[in-house]
Amino acid sequence: MKIVFASDSFKGSLSSEKISELLETVTPQIFPNAEMVSLPVADGGEGTMSILVKALKGSYKKVITEDPLGEPVTACYGLLPKHTAIIEMASASGLPLVKEEKRNPLLTSSYGTGLLIRDALDEGVEHILIALGGSATNDGGMGAMTALGIHFLDKNGQRLKGSGEELAKVYAIDVSNAHSRLKNVQFTILSDVTNPLLGKNGATYTFSKQKGATDSMMQSLETGMTEFSYLVERSVGRQLVNKEGSGAAGGLAFSLMAFVKANVASGIETILDILGFDTKIKGADFIITGEGQLDRQSAFGKVISGVAKRAKKQDIPVFAIVGSLQDHYETIYDCGVSSIITTVNRPMSLDEALENSEFLYQDAAYRLLTAIRTGMIIHQKSKN
Amino acid sequence: MKIVFASDSFKGSLSSEKISELLETVTPQIFPNAEMVSLPVADGGEGTMSILVKALKGSYKKVITEDPLGEPVTACYGLLPKHTAIIEMASASGLPLVKEEKRNPLLTSSYGTGLLIRDALDEGVEHILIALGGSATNDGGMGAMTALGIHFLDKNGQRLKGSGEELAKVYAIDVSNAHSRLKNVQFTILSDVTNPLLGKNGATYTFSKQKGATDSMMQSLETGMTEFSYLVERSVGRQLVNKEGSGAAGGLAFSLMAFVKANVASGIETILDILGFDTKIKGADFIITGEGQLDRQSAFGKVISGVAKRAKKQDIPVFAIVGSLQDHYETIYDCGVSSIITTVNRPMSLDEALENSEFLYQDAAYRLLTAIRTGMIIHQKSKN
Repeated sequence: MKIVFASDSFKGSLSSEKISELLETVTPQIFPNAEMVSLPVADGGEGTMSILVKALKGSYKKVITEDPLGEPVTACYGLLPKHTAIIEMASASGLPLVKEEKRNPLLTSSYGTGLLIRDALDEGVEHILIALGGSATNDGGMGAMTALGIHFLDKNGQRLKGSGEELAKVYAIDVSNAHSRLKNVQFTILSDVTNPLLGKNGATYTFSKQKGATDSMMQSLETGMTEFSYLVERSVGRQLVNKEGSGAAGGLAFSLMAFVKANVASGIETILDILGFDTKIKGADFIITGEGQLDRQSAFGKVISGVAKRAKKQDIPVFAIVGSLQDHYETIYDCGVSSIITTVNRPMSLDEALENSEFLYQDAAYRLLTAIRTGMIIHQKSKN
Repeated sequence: MKIVFASDSFKGSLSSEKISELLETVTPQIFPNAEMVSLPVADGGEGTMSILVKALKGSYKKVITEDPLGEPVTACYGLLPKHTAIIEMASASGLPLVKEEKRNPLLTSSYGTGLLIRDALDEGVEHILIALGGSATNDGGMGAMTALGIHFLDKNGQRLKGSGEELAKVYAIDVSNAHSRLKNVQFTILSDVTNPLLGKNGATYTFSKQKGATDSMMQSLETGMTEFSYLVERSVGRQLVNKEGSGAAGGLAFSLMAFVKANVASGIETILDILGFDTKIKGADFIITGEGQLDRQSAFGKVISGVAKRAKKQDIPVFAIVGSLQDHYETIYDCGVSSIITTVNRPMSLDEALENSEFLYQDAAYRLLTAIRTGMIIHQKSKN
């Protein structure tokens, strides 16, 4: 038998690698002779960098950069083979870096992410994978571009540094001092966000609330973003505000689309390709995948659906071990998931589930694997 | 394929019969051609009467009786073939009949249960199954015996009616007016309680707290029970206080052992025998059982362990669908349970689990059955 472990992390409790470890401990109790293949995966969210660095035997580069409020912070990005870097925006500009009471997208900036990109350019990479999940910013990418040498000037000709509230102050854009290698590098934006930059479904009105925006902040952010985007479009000579996905990461996607060579790619598909997933699962009897929570969104560009769709092509059954099932999770069955078990196994709070995550995961894995094994025995008996 | 459904009820949410219905709805989605055999079961607790009346095509007898505090209440018992009655003590003397703030085992009485027994004697039954679970009383069975014509007299020769606080007042016992048919009837006490009547592990110190006793109440109850039991033993000429199980139902078991022909039997074993379980599961591919909660106790005389032990003898795999798993539930695997799934599938409160019990049950059943079916497919593929 060959069994593949390809789970996402459980946000806030178990990394994908830890989940593989737990499965490697439990599985031999039920299938003592099985070949186990661990392929920790991510979809461009938390854990993406770590998975790629480990799988491709890359290295980390530590950089002193700025957090979303401009305070110094040490962040890192990954250096991979083939002159490639993997940058997680959340590493420098992530929401968890800002205390809840200080979250304010008028003040936060993507400048720190720009410094990570600049460092990678200085390292000589030719390809940057940038994972956009979890940002604290709604600055249209103005901060990041500033860090890369693109100057946004106010009406007095003073340089701005980039933040939500400065969007409305931009009067002119000067690209003449942009980092010299910016045009030589291909950016791949790992993002499953399809929202445009502006409007009701745009960056501000869809995502800024969770970053701390009040209703009145949202209005002024949207006004600023609208003015900013017209200036950017005029500067680069292209219409981009309605482009699918330009609203990702508080609009950093928009600026990348405007100022660098960037393509948007599905996080999960890109990562599965990089990992050589299709080859590594060949001949597997089944795959165990999972994530912290299955919900209505899980069928779209997340780990479980990505894994299941590829397994389906090779006719390999997929089981999911998840923390919890939310309403309308059932769409995941259409992606090719055979069955699902939850680690939450009695009435409990989320905190309790997080605190006992390792034990609960192992317990659920044991129960799933015994159900599968017993199914196999039933089939055998019914043949006799 | 043949699949047997033999689940206990989920206390407070789903009856065994309802669970069978839910499984009959879900199963054909996964195993369209399976023969389904529904065998709702109980272990002597909640639902026992209803299951036996339905399975044996018996009938109900309604009786106006008394609740634990002496208020009139309508309760019923079951009349079964072979001149047998099934009485649930909880029907007349159950804890849910007493409001939480009124629970006080000094005041509660098993008198109402005695009236049910008396009615069954008047009906001419020859065998009474009496399920002792869930009582609100700690009266040593004094109330029930009084209702059957056994007189407990105080030191002034006045008749007492029976309650926790009256135990200490008994001065003499007069059995000369006992119901004329009492000696002709065989009682089978369905109980899995092994506690003796007195002492640290006795009825009072083990069970009266959950019936509303304070520490000082317990002291006076134990003193009364001790005096009462010596008088009873002297009256019947036998030592019974240390007999295993005499502490069940606040000591009603003790009085039954003393004053009537009574044997104690495992609830689950008796019920499985009556239902013809061993015959009906013959040739089954697997059995689905379950109960509201699996815990350390579940391996002892409860539905899941009872079902699993018998299935094991016929080499039939057993799966459990349970509401929740509590610490040290794992002993159940030794009884022959192959795998377990919980209906609770995300962090939630007990109330939420109870409110959504039908939906959650069906969802868990679906996920378990798909895991089994996929196991069967995996086996098939690995043979090709």
